[in-house]
Amino acid sequence: MAEDSWIAVDAMGGDEGLAVMLAGVAQARRRNPGLRFLLVGDETAIRAGLQSHPNLTAASEVVHAPELVGSSDKPSQAIRRARTTSMGIAIDLVKKGRAAAAVSSGNTGALMAMAKLALRTMPGIDRPALAALLPSLGENDLVMLDLGANAECDARNLVQFAVMGAAYARAVLDLESPRVALLNIGTEDMKGIDSVRDAAAAIRASTHLPLTFTGYIEGDRLSRGEVDVVVCDGFSGNIALKTAEGTARFVADLLKRAFRSSVRSKIGFLISKPATDLLRHHLDPNNHNGAIFLGLNGLVVKSHGGANAAGVSNAIEVAAKLVRNNLTHRIAEDLAAIEAKAA
Amino acid sequence: MAEDSWIAVDAMGGDEGLAVMLAGVAQARRRNPGLRFLLVGDETAIRAGLQSHPNLTAASEVVHAPELVGSSDKPSQAIRRARTTSMGIAIDLVKKGRAAAAVSSGNTGALMAMAKLALRTMPGIDRPALAALLPSLGENDLVMLDLGANAECDARNLVQFAVMGAAYARAVLDLESPRVALLNIGTEDMKGIDSVRDAAAAIRASTHLPLTFTGYIEGDRLSRGEVDVVVCDGFSGNIALKTAEGTARFVADLLKRAFRSSVRSKIGFLISKPATDLLRHHLDPNNHNGAIFLGLNGLVVKSHGGANAAGVSNAIEVAAKLVRNNLTHRIAEDLAAIEAKAA
Repeated sequence: MAEDSWIAVDAMGGDEGLAVMLAGVAQARRRNPGLRFLLVGDETAIRAGLQSHPNLTAASEVVHAPELVGSSDKPSQAIRRARTTSMGIAIDLVKKGRAAAAVSSGNTGALMAMAKLALRTMPGIDRPALAALLPSLGENDLVMLDLGANAECDARNLVQFAVMGAAYARAVLDLESPRVALLNIGTEDMKGIDSVRDAAAAIRASTHLPLTFTGYIEGDRLSRGEVDVVVCDGFSGNIALKTAEGTARFVADLLKRAFRSSVRSKIGFLISKPATDLLRHHLDPNNHNGAIFLGLNGLVVKSHGGANAAGVSNAIEVAAKLVRNNLTHRIAEDLAAIEAKAA
Repeated sequence: MAEDSWIAVDAMGGDEGLAVMLAGVAQARRRNPGLRFLLVGDETAIRAGLQSHPNLTAASEVVHAPELVGSSDKPSQAIRRARTTSMGIAIDLVKKGRAAAAVSSGNTGALMAMAKLALRTMPGIDRPALAALLPSLGENDLVMLDLGANAECDARNLVQFAVMGAAYARAVLDLESPRVALLNIGTEDMKGIDSVRDAAAAIRASTHLPLTFTGYIEGDRLSRGEVDVVVCDGFSGNIALKTAEGTARFVADLLKRAFRSSVRSKIGFLISKPATDLLRHHLDPNNHNGAIFLGLNGLVVKSHGGANAAGVSNAIEVAAKLVRNNLTHRIAEDLAAIEAKAA
């Protein structure tokens, strides 16, 4: 990444407030001294907040935005205020080329709608998809998409998601021909719904794609490290993602209860605390924060609304990594190559 | 339950073979001396297997079936062999009133199709749904449906699932007005897909239902104990269920790795082993085995294909509990009462 890569940050989005956003940006800056930031939001509040972050102040410019997008604003409402809200202005900075990427912890639906309207989808892509890296037992993380941008998808959307997901895995995970699977409720050909079956047939028929199609995958094998990219509609993808988060927390809670169940297990807990701390670190959603809208002419990263400073910092580092890997360009190249081969 | 309640067992279904099925039935019998079994399958093989289970032999009759349903047989193929397969004959024993319930570890799609054809859906129910009890942090388990019987559902199906799920929770969990939620990808009214939004509106408008509708629930809160019944289509329900299973195993695997990471944590592990064993017991899917097809004129319980003997035993105990609680009758009563109030 060029030394002067700028990242636009919607400083007002997220449930945790401006102070957490700034602390997160400051943390990312400490770990990546080459980064520079356009902090978008209420100028007075941001300048006041920056007082505690001299290191960040030196690497930032403040871009004033008089308004913000609320967490319950409808996408249609948000779009009308694209020019005055911190989210809309952060995206616009990417459109104008002043920032290499935008990061927001705000309302997902509004972010998706605004980003799509301002940046437009790439040629060959009908709808952008929300993708993220999830932990797995394999050698690399798992790319999963769509995680909630499109509640309903047809086969054509799913095929495009497969191509974009594979490009993402090639760029970020350095895999030559990522193993791609479609999420389904069985592994036999006849299982599932039409859109998934039709997408499988289309991907199988497209032997020129730079990916290795492995067929269907069920929810219980997502984290086994057997595939690199999992493709699904945004409804089931969001449910799978959140169920995985909830289950990890559930197991951790049960473990806590179990450790408290006797003096003996309390002692065992204290002795093995470094091990369980490692586990907690591995499972903390903040350490996997930062989902990206794939398929747009520009990088927009969605940070979890409830992310803490470490989570915000991770989302910014995801953005920085994608800028460094020139993701948008590489997806466009893949799409062009596919079109050329298909022609 | 009457002392002479008979349960029909498809002894040939399941990936683990006849020996595991018989061991599971014998285990259930030891814990429930009132139960009697119709063991359906290859008579010679069953009689040979029974040699090692004298206790079960005394409480069983063998019903010969010359064929079995394969794990990859299409439902349409299976239906044509309803009279000759162990699965089809087990269901038929329920239809004829010779058994109070049927239990099978075989092919889910075939079991659903055969059960629906033989037993028919209750008046007021268009499609049966697969329901199971899942572990939660709350005071009782969670009823979740549909877990895969219907990949696609409309609002009307979801409303019927809500009524049946509530009846199931009333019968099995002893709750007067179970808290029912629809699985969705957000909690705001506008979130999700049409079928879910329309079902929410319909349930909200039906104030006479014997349930407390709590709106939408997201995947990350399924196990928090905040609701008693979660309703969804079979595609996302199956994905949520399997993702939860996979994540629990993933966390357990990480924990194992963490405990092995140093001598200190190995010692901690040995000391806290009773606590982690408790956790393993709680998370073992075999301890939650036994899903039921709700909405049929008869009880059919689906045991996991890969269940071990303890799992099979649990599925049989689920069937016995539903027989004891007269579930089919109670759902029919609830449906009749709803219709009467609506009229």
